[in-house]
Amino acid sequence: MPSIDLSCDMGEAFGNYTMPNDEALLDYISSASIACGFHAGDPAVMQNTVAAAIKKGVAIGAHPGLPDLQGFGRREMQISPKEAYQMVLYQIGALYAFVKAAGGRLNHVKAHGALYNMAGRDPALARAIVDAVHDFDPGLILFALAGSEMVVAAKKTGLAYASEVFADRTYQDDGSLTPRTRPDALITDEEQSLKQVLMMVNQQQVISSSKKTITLKADTLCLHGDGSHAVEFAKTIHKTLVDEGVAIKAPSRF
Amino acid sequence: MPSIDLSCDMGEAFGNYTMPNDEALLDYISSASIACGFHAGDPAVMQNTVAAAIKKGVAIGAHPGLPDLQGFGRREMQISPKEAYQMVLYQIGALYAFVKAAGGRLNHVKAHGALYNMAGRDPALARAIVDAVHDFDPGLILFALAGSEMVVAAKKTGLAYASEVFADRTYQDDGSLTPRTRPDALITDEEQSLKQVLMMVNQQQVISSSKKTITLKADTLCLHGDGSHAVEFAKTIHKTLVDEGVAIKAPSRF
Amino acid sequence: MPSIDLSCDMGEAFGNYTMPNDEALLDYISSASIACGFHAGDPAVMQNTVAAAIKKGVAIGAHPGLPDLQGFGRREMQISPKEAYQMVLYQIGALYAFVKAAGGRLNHVKAHGALYNMAGRDPALARAIVDAVHDFDPGLILFALAGSEMVVAAKKTGLAYASEVFADRTYQDDGSLTPRTRPDALITDEEQSLKQVLMMVNQQQVISSSKKTITLKADTLCLHGDGSHAVEFAKTIHKTLVDEGVAIKAPSRF
Amino acid sequence: MPSIDLSCDMGEAFGNYTMPNDEALLDYISSASIACGFHAGDPAVMQNTVAAAIKKGVAIGAHPGLPDLQGFGRREMQISPKEAYQMVLYQIGALYAFVKAAGGRLNHVKAHGALYNMAGRDPALARAIVDAVHDFDPGLILFALAGSEMVVAAKKTGLAYASEVFADRTYQDDGSLTPRTRPDALITDEEQSLKQVLMMVNQQQVISSSKKTITLKADTLCLHGDGSHAVEFAKTIHKTLVDEGVAIKAPSRF
Repeated sequence: MPSIDLSCDMGEAFGNYTMPNDEALLDYISSASIACGFHAGDPAVMQNTVAAAIKKGVAIGAHPGLPDLQGFGRREMQISPKEAYQMVLYQIGALYAFVKAAGGRLNHVKAHGALYNMAGRDPALARAIVDAVHDFDPGLILFALAGSEMVVAAKKTGLAYASEVFADRTYQDDGSLTPRTRPDALITDEEQSLKQVLMMVNQQQVISSSKKTITLKADTLCLHGDGSHAVEFAKTIHKTLVDEGVAIKAPSRF
Repeated sequence: MPSIDLSCDMGEAFGNYTMPNDEALLDYISSASIACGFHAGDPAVMQNTVAAAIKKGVAIGAHPGLPDLQGFGRREMQISPKEAYQMVLYQIGALYAFVKAAGGRLNHVKAHGALYNMAGRDPALARAIVDAVHDFDPGLILFALAGSEMVVAAKKTGLAYASEVFADRTYQDDGSLTPRTRPDALITDEEQSLKQVLMMVNQQQVISSSKKTITLKADTLCLHGDGSHAVEFAKTIHKTLVDEGVAIKAPSRF
Repeated sequence: MPSIDLSCDMGEAFGNYTMPNDEALLDYISSASIACGFHAGDPAVMQNTVAAAIKKGVAIGAHPGLPDLQGFGRREMQISPKEAYQMVLYQIGALYAFVKAAGGRLNHVKAHGALYNMAGRDPALARAIVDAVHDFDPGLILFALAGSEMVVAAKKTGLAYASEVFADRTYQDDGSLTPRTRPDALITDEEQSLKQVLMMVNQQQVISSSKKTITLKADTLCLHGDGSHAVEFAKTIHKTLVDEGVAIKAPSRF
Repeated sequence: MPSIDLSCDMGEAFGNYTMPNDEALLDYISSASIACGFHAGDPAVMQNTVAAAIKKGVAIGAHPGLPDLQGFGRREMQISPKEAYQMVLYQIGALYAFVKAAGGRLNHVKAHGALYNMAGRDPALARAIVDAVHDFDPGLILFALAGSEMVVAAKKTGLAYASEVFADRTYQDDGSLTPRTRPDALITDEEQSLKQVLMMVNQQQVISSSKKTITLKADTLCLHGDGSHAVEFAKTIHKTLVDEGVAIKAPSRF
């Protein structure tokens, strides 16, 4: 029986600013990557999101980002591998505290936004993040962009990883995501998006922008949590996968 | 053989701003309370300070403060007990990550500045902080102002605590610190300061501002780390205590 | 012909977090108090909000708050008058830059949240804020809680002020707002709220919680911008006042 | 009579963290570029630094940086020209408020650190910064790296600029600074540094790393304010220039 993890970035509220979809999305996902206060999230949001995830039986991951609340962690910053290590380790610990205090278990770590992108192509940053995760707890699972330097670094270090794919992004022939600057970067048609997901899950393949069939390891599928249709789309994906006999479950720790 | 813990607030540098005394002070203390990024400290400073403390065999504590870098955590803020719980838990986790990754052990938690003062007199805040420490790890030791509400809360919850005293502050008849707004709040004469310390350690007593002899539990003595004489004074205290046959050691975890 | 200013706190979005009512509210108000980046707002939000206000012919004010984004400037902080002066001056200047660059004119200053409340009852803080406004530009108008220490300080300094009243808050016999901790602090019935507004505008009077008729100077009426009914309520108030022959206009600078 | 402006980046303290050289340096410089709270500085530091500069008759400039206090504004961030415009405008206004309130005059603007470097080579960022300065006040002077895109943008817009040179950096054949990653980037020999300064001032020339004589417009010379020798070096440069008959004065506004 094929299986996949459905994940969503969560806990990206801050102070007075809410993220209204979070609670509803928990019904359709198996893993939540929770912001840790640098690009979004604060101690109150973290506590509440961790509690909600535990209540719904959703696996919890730390979602560390760049220290740029205004830019939501999406603006690349010229940081050294050492700084990447330090900021990731800090944020993992902060989220871990809420998970521990609530009697839960931290299952994975996924870098956010620009940090995820930078580490996906820079071996030294990838290695620094893998080291931070591994040094904190070698039993954690790294969520890594399929085919990226993060996967390479995780393999080298012997850290378990889940290869991450996207429902609404197109892929290039080399398996990388089509850059957002390109007009064909996003899949806006829901039908096409569902088709891509099923092919990824059942065949570990995807049709690239230039119509080539390429191989892609699909362990975890990232759903976007913002936008007015996010909950509806999560529900649809969830139902489609279940109807097709796909098991939806978080990757297991050692 | 009488014993006491000598502690210092550490890791209060930030980014480009250094705290030059930290390294030298580690030679004379048994416990370091390390800032966690809210009132001072950042991921780089935390990593470096944790590494230095481990190298010198100094016990490590988390030193959480209010989210007020500009005010150095010294301006009181009207926070709820829930907010106190959340910000303390967050910061303990963040520091724990560096300690864990470096192969060390987190031994204690001490609130900083205004948070320490507020919780010392407000039972609900004291309870919230004690709960945060206990929920993270019931084996941790709380550093609590001697005779304060923090001590009361720790006792109620069954959390181990170390009663904290000061070398350079005077005490009132009820065992509380003379407020800094009073002219006689500080002991500026080194001789008198050393005398107070020895009396605290050997007799668990102190002479109050009004010359009464009062009882005071002295488990840990806080030295100030800033100022040009801080290292010299730490050295002198350390030597005086050793010469008097006092063992200098961190309080033990369960 | 009676007249009143209708104002709203605006530009309280931040980074990725939006405040969707702002644009629509501008159709019904005569003054916008725009956040300056401390409790809310950022350079992008400030630029956009200033541009929108100028386009709609709404008078612009700076809305400085405490440096506490997570607490939205609503948690009181123990700051000195000097610190209040400095943080208000900084924020006025920051907002002024966007107004100046856009070819507009800064008309007023209104402190936000906890800073507004603290200065309303503390003469030294009130004086510090009045001084900051006056030192920047003696032609600016201070928005001050009716009957508060802010009014007293403005009068002493010779700074023009607009006495601020609320549509949805009840008043005590001494003219102060009923504290939010009391069950009768808020007026939830729209009819009653409109009645209070009309009495304030036409008679400069209000019925207190204990049913006494008291005198209250009403120069500017603050509408709340958040909540799902905010725009609808602003529209209703605006229409009611216009229908009653009340002129809605911002207070004039010297 | 040849003349040059001697400038220093100032007001880069923050909260509890001091920058002890600032006051002493004011005796030897003609322009101070004062941090505005993003990469360093806070409202208290800004007020104090502005007051000190006015007292010493030193011309004042705003020194806006990237919003990265931990990185001291030295880590490049992927910001859009629009974001550059907004963050520079915000910071100019904030500093202007302190200058205005103290009865002084804002004379120039100089971008800090990574923002200065990025705008020096990126025409769109350079243009955005020039626009922010010009939109705030077309009479302001831009401090721009000699030969950089900032100079190009200032010329295009008709904004006055001062071409900035460095005493302790080497230059390449094309007039650009030798990158800090190269071993010969810094001039550590004081004699050689003074020689370079005199050649720049008297002949508007410099000897490049490869020993070519190149032309360089030298309107303002930047001295580093940190480090233990900063004050001593400023004093020496100042005396050397005065002894050589060079007038030390800030560039004049229109």
